[in-house]
Amino acid sequence: MRTEICERFGIEFPLLAFSHCRDVVAAVTNAGGMGVLGAVAYTPERLEEELRWIDDHVDGRPYGVDVLVPGRLDESAERAGRGEADPDAMLAAIPDEHWRFLAGLFEKYDVPPPDLDQARRGGARGGTRVTQEGATELIDVSLSHPIRLIAGALGTPPPLMVEKARSAGIPVAALVGTAEHARRQVAAGADLIVAQGGEAGGHTGEISTMVLVPEVVDTVAPVPVLAAGGIATGRQLAAALALGASGAWCGSVWLTTEEAETSPAVKEKMLAATSRDTVRSRSRTGKPARQLRSSWTDEWDGPGSPGPLGMPLQIIVSQGAMNQIQKIAESGNPGARALANYYVGQCVGLMNTVKPARQVVHDMMQDFAEALDRLNTISGTG
Amino acid sequence: MRTEICERFGIEFPLLAFSHCRDVVAAVTNAGGMGVLGAVAYTPERLEEELRWIDDHVDGRPYGVDVLVPGRLDESAERAGRGEADPDAMLAAIPDEHWRFLAGLFEKYDVPPPDLDQARRGGARGGTRVTQEGATELIDVSLSHPIRLIAGALGTPPPLMVEKARSAGIPVAALVGTAEHARRQVAAGADLIVAQGGEAGGHTGEISTMVLVPEVVDTVAPVPVLAAGGIATGRQLAAALALGASGAWCGSVWLTTEEAETSPAVKEKMLAATSRDTVRSRSRTGKPARQLRSSWTDEWDGPGSPGPLGMPLQIIVSQGAMNQIQKIAESGNPGARALANYYVGQCVGLMNTVKPARQVVHDMMQDFAEALDRLNTISGTG
Repeated sequence: MRTEICERFGIEFPLLAFSHCRDVVAAVTNAGGMGVLGAVAYTPERLEEELRWIDDHVDGRPYGVDVLVPGRLDESAERAGRGEADPDAMLAAIPDEHWRFLAGLFEKYDVPPPDLDQARRGGARGGTRVTQEGATELIDVSLSHPIRLIAGALGTPPPLMVEKARSAGIPVAALVGTAEHARRQVAAGADLIVAQGGEAGGHTGEISTMVLVPEVVDTVAPVPVLAAGGIATGRQLAAALALGASGAWCGSVWLTTEEAETSPAVKEKMLAATSRDTVRSRSRTGKPARQLRSSWTDEWDGPGSPGPLGMPLQIIVSQGAMNQIQKIAESGNPGARALANYYVGQCVGLMNTVKPARQVVHDMMQDFAEALDRLNTISGTG
Repeated sequence: MRTEICERFGIEFPLLAFSHCRDVVAAVTNAGGMGVLGAVAYTPERLEEELRWIDDHVDGRPYGVDVLVPGRLDESAERAGRGEADPDAMLAAIPDEHWRFLAGLFEKYDVPPPDLDQARRGGARGGTRVTQEGATELIDVSLSHPIRLIAGALGTPPPLMVEKARSAGIPVAALVGTAEHARRQVAAGADLIVAQGGEAGGHTGEISTMVLVPEVVDTVAPVPVLAAGGIATGRQLAAALALGASGAWCGSVWLTTEEAETSPAVKEKMLAATSRDTVRSRSRTGKPARQLRSSWTDEWDGPGSPGPLGMPLQIIVSQGAMNQIQKIAESGNPGARALANYYVGQCVGLMNTVKPARQVVHDMMQDFAEALDRLNTISGTG
């Protein structure tokens, strides 16, 4: 296929796969698309290992890395950390009320609580990685590998990231949820825009893919645009290209693949979920992120809640708790199973069987070809 | 073009235009698509006039009528009206608090209030038309004209509507926001499904067009599906067909045409609006409906509000008020201009110039052809 994206990266099929799982990244790259490893959950040491593994498994084929770099942190975090990665200052900024609410949830759902001190410390380490300082370390590790793309998922890419990528000759991709943000990202140095509709999993805005993609394409032309949000099939990729995109950026669809890191209890929920079973909630990170609706989101967004904190403080509150909930859910604990969830887009309704990632790519290729045939038959050109 | 929709209705271009404006309906029908008149705002007598005018202007070409038939009314309305169209019972069910809040809005925004008694009576008449009894009269008037489609916008089409349409040999279309609703609508007798994504204007769900259309297509096959929500250009129509739809159902895009009934102050707001300037709010009808965000939606959905009532009670509260606000806004009153709004989808961001409706259709045809060429070039088949 011939799109700006295929030519730029030398790939056959204009599909970028965002995943935290190295196996998915390598499988998609090897199947003719391009995998992008989500690095935010990793320490610099662990990221180094993961990238080395990918290098060993893709035989020089292209892959990328995504680092979550918030343009501006929540005010309370700014106050607490002065923009710096100080776990203690962050911990001190979290009201007791939120820890009490969290403890109450474990009690109410009859789930053994995690060691609170450990959870706090683990959460604080996670929180520091979404500061600019934390992200910079991950960028440095990434650029020491033969990556072909570096992406930033939140806000304008900081000058340091753009400079480092430029010196290394690596294009920078930026995820946006509005045309105005796309304009700003290009001005800040983004070489590629991922226009992500509100139906997407994870941090997302409210404008749908159908509307956002043509808006962004018109705004940033000739900068290439990838469509994201809701896309899990080849006909949706065809739709994205019809809208003017140069390819698609898919994240959710990999979560129910054989390789995925998704915990079994959550994977089961995803396979059973319909497109109605997601919610845009601040309850995991402090910023609106689409995820499976579960007792966790219901409780945090419900009337008895103190309300989620901002980013990264809510990450600190939720991270250790969610790890524990996931672990306990595997043993069949019904309360933990009710609480467990994960980021996923509305296309979870289209994800109904477990397949190898390679198979997902092949099915998308096939479905894409059929959609194109259908369009040509309709218009009398086929 | 060859889609199920083109063949069934004998139209050239698979575009259905929902509009409350007879001029738009006739213009789209005459340009090769098919207009569908939204009848809910009309009395039976007025609808008779409008349809006679359309008959005189389309030279036998196909058009349809849309009647808003709620499957189930709000409980308070059921209690008040026992499902019947009793304006007095409906008025009695509205708490004083809501009238006081409304009066307070007029005061706060320095807008001369409407005659409250008149507004109540007018609103109650409007409210009765969204009962099944009220809708039945509109259906009878519609079926006495050579319409080619009857559509119901809310909930399952009542058996009476399906029976009447069947006897007259007229297909029934039903708007849905979920695959489950689509299944129920087909079971209830719908011949055609309009899968309407959450980005659409007016009453709408939360699942986006990109996800909903393939879900609904798979669920109701071989019943034909029209895609709705966010579609205002030919490339979006091409995307809809790629997703498996047989055509598109567009409502918002006509609101800024030359012919549109849209009040000048609101049309101006729409031309200036971006895709971020809409909100899904219950403040006009009692059910979530996407509309321009304005001081009206901010106030009703804000902290000082008693909260919108259900349907049709909120229609009774808001209808006379919105008419007055619109009228006063035309004189330049800043408070009225701040409050004024109307139903519109996120594609309002793509609606930036006033054009005749015929031109909109022609532009969509051209843009569609270009999108198809682009797709074929990409895939190497063009």
